[in-house]
Amino acid sequence: MVPCGTILQQLSVIVNKGKIVDILPEDKCSRYYDPKKEVHLKSHVLLPGFVNAHTHTAMYLFKSYGDDNSLSDWLEHFIWPMEKKFISIPFITDGVKMGCAEMIRSGTTCFNDMYYYPVETANLVSKIGMRAVIGLMARDGTGNQNANRAILSSEPSSPLIRFTIAPHSCYLYDEKTLKEIHSICTECHSFMHIHVQETKDELVNSMAGNRQGKACHCSDAHCSPIENMARLGYLDNACCAHCVHVTDKDIMLLAAHSASVVHCPNSNMKLGSGICPVQRMLDAGVNVCLGTDGASSNNNLDMLREMRAAALLGPLADGDAKAVNAVTALEMATIRGARALGLEEAIGSVEVGKCADLVAVDMNCIEARPLHNLFSSIVYASGREQVTHVWVDGKALMEEGKLTTLNAEELCEKAKEWEVSLHDENPYVDGCEQCSSPFSDTPSS
Amino acid sequence: MVPCGTILQQLSVIVNKGKIVDILPEDKCSRYYDPKKEVHLKSHVLLPGFVNAHTHTAMYLFKSYGDDNSLSDWLEHFIWPMEKKFISIPFITDGVKMGCAEMIRSGTTCFNDMYYYPVETANLVSKIGMRAVIGLMARDGTGNQNANRAILSSEPSSPLIRFTIAPHSCYLYDEKTLKEIHSICTECHSFMHIHVQETKDELVNSMAGNRQGKACHCSDAHCSPIENMARLGYLDNACCAHCVHVTDKDIMLLAAHSASVVHCPNSNMKLGSGICPVQRMLDAGVNVCLGTDGASSNNNLDMLREMRAAALLGPLADGDAKAVNAVTALEMATIRGARALGLEEAIGSVEVGKCADLVAVDMNCIEARPLHNLFSSIVYASGREQVTHVWVDGKALMEEGKLTTLNAEELCEKAKEWEVSLHDENPYVDGCEQCSSPFSDTPSS
Repeated sequence: MVPCGTILQQLSVIVNKGKIVDILPEDKCSRYYDPKKEVHLKSHVLLPGFVNAHTHTAMYLFKSYGDDNSLSDWLEHFIWPMEKKFISIPFITDGVKMGCAEMIRSGTTCFNDMYYYPVETANLVSKIGMRAVIGLMARDGTGNQNANRAILSSEPSSPLIRFTIAPHSCYLYDEKTLKEIHSICTECHSFMHIHVQETKDELVNSMAGNRQGKACHCSDAHCSPIENMARLGYLDNACCAHCVHVTDKDIMLLAAHSASVVHCPNSNMKLGSGICPVQRMLDAGVNVCLGTDGASSNNNLDMLREMRAAALLGPLADGDAKAVNAVTALEMATIRGARALGLEEAIGSVEVGKCADLVAVDMNCIEARPLHNLFSSIVYASGREQVTHVWVDGKALMEEGKLTTLNAEELCEKAKEWEVSLHDENPYVDGCEQCSSPFSDTPSS
Repeated sequence: MVPCGTILQQLSVIVNKGKIVDILPEDKCSRYYDPKKEVHLKSHVLLPGFVNAHTHTAMYLFKSYGDDNSLSDWLEHFIWPMEKKFISIPFITDGVKMGCAEMIRSGTTCFNDMYYYPVETANLVSKIGMRAVIGLMARDGTGNQNANRAILSSEPSSPLIRFTIAPHSCYLYDEKTLKEIHSICTECHSFMHIHVQETKDELVNSMAGNRQGKACHCSDAHCSPIENMARLGYLDNACCAHCVHVTDKDIMLLAAHSASVVHCPNSNMKLGSGICPVQRMLDAGVNVCLGTDGASSNNNLDMLREMRAAALLGPLADGDAKAVNAVTALEMATIRGARALGLEEAIGSVEVGKCADLVAVDMNCIEARPLHNLFSSIVYASGREQVTHVWVDGKALMEEGKLTTLNAEELCEKAKEWEVSLHDENPYVDGCEQCSSPFSDTPSS
């Protein structure tokens, strides 16, 4: 195994039946292989496809809707009423397609989703050709648990798709339900995907046992939600989004229970949630990976932007410029994401035997140069426009900047239709002086 | 005057002799004008060119050099020894060209510079066609002051260029020198450009009068550098970069003395400096604008990235998602930057009578859609690849993504030459496993 952070030059990656079968010096290639198709990338870096470990893909249609409001205003006056009105299969279909289009165009090959209509989302994503872990919605009651167990334990309809169960949080689900969900996930070799300690309120109110307070966990235990999860046995292997506000004990428990933390730096900044102590978690042995969260609290599903934000925000948490360096950010976006999703053996690095989930980033532009340090150049300086090729399971989803399974132009037109549909409901637009011209219709000179 | 944050649709901007002479409805245009050249931008937003109010352009060549080290290690072991060895006219020439290329490609039309060889930089920037305020280097002693006064008071060789004097900081210059510099600037209708209170050490040590401590101002006054500047009369109209660590009194003084603060969010994060309380400053009436700082502490000179960072970081300072909203971030990157540089009458908004310093951003891509809120879409979701046209004084510096006065491909090759030149001196490269292949030359399958 090649350690993460290794740079190899002038090599060819040989792909067969979706797998990386060899990596060898370019000049030796023709001696051993006679490929059906060759892709020459002379000025590129070839990376493992990025893993977006926490998102709500179909929320794409709410992007920039109700921005710059407080979290509670945003949810109560913008998102929740609109979800109630608009969530439907057409909404999910268009949102997922647009989200996948942006993810592919910025180098993401795999994502961990949590939103409405998970089974429909799964079918669509498998057609698009991305890899995903789709979180089933959890509801209280045996009926829902049995239905979820049936999906989790059945043979997947596509090798690209896996399911988890994704209860929103410890403040919306009681202990018994979370325990049941976790045991179904364990039984089916999956993991539980859940929001944990995103806000200070969630930590403070749970520790104080203030059940009337915002985001207090549904438990009488006066302790952090993470501590309660550990105590009751449902922290193991859990994929915990955010974990912005954590105690030292929480960090120790996350490591001891092999739970993963999905750091969402852009979302945590935008909502004013706070800064996740990533380097401290990594030092304690926690698997910290990266996610974009939904497009409405970001407003992109772009893992290059997320890596940059993680590497920039890391030093702020500690006041130490060395915290969360560029190699670490890249690890968080690749192999650590794969680990969080139980896919470490299959994806997350460019290695013989792994799936050919790959992304090519063109470094031949002034924005990426001078390139005194490749990792730094990728993480701090590169942008989505440098991503030219993306493969999942060896199949090209983007070639020379052009999507192969989605039509970006059509989706852009579709997005404009949704702008109109949502427009009438949007108090934001009415509040701005759009369309009003202060100019007369005669020239001023 | 149209208030900032106004959206006007289906209008034409008429430019003559570098100035905006009219703005009128598209369909009325042909009735009154018969233009020599028309540019049709059907899916774009036309914005005032961005003003990068604090940068060290020629440091471009050190981009990604010594990244992820502490500020003191980075300066002492990487930047300072290399500056000593490499700073020369060829270095400055290539660095400035590359920096300008990236700035134009990301929509910046004007910048406020502080680095070596200012006169040579000024000549070069004026040939490139960008607008800039170039900071002259300050040295103790009457000779230097007289030379700087001569440059500041003489007729500029290009209408695009102005000069300031840019002493590094209150910890590298004594009170007497700063006072002299400030009075020359005032006499010549310019302003002083200086780093202020970037680190906690600078504030704490200055307040404690700890002259041996890091970054303590060169004064016996036990107060913040800002307070001392105000007391001695050289805070007026000063352009103060960073101001991360400030007292309530400092904020009040900045407002009272019409000083501007240049917020550099990406640099402040990357170096772990802290978070500038931008919204509190704005609420107190301080003119806060935006800068990228040098490319080696960012690692871009991209004002779209800077706006995004400001709008994301704002809520963290206050724990309030409403702080530094998208319109505010755009203001900071345009009209507030113009104000800081004394250019508010000439640039910073799209208005009749102002210079035609304009940037067109294409919103017809999935990353920018759905566009429920234009400002949000520009600030949070848009990227430099959407910038297609840039004009300064009505002259196109980029048309349909192609630079007109610089050659991006040639500069990219030039950057590679500098990578080689600096490579031998770069301990970073030796520390990584570049070029070493762990693979045998026989195929593994």
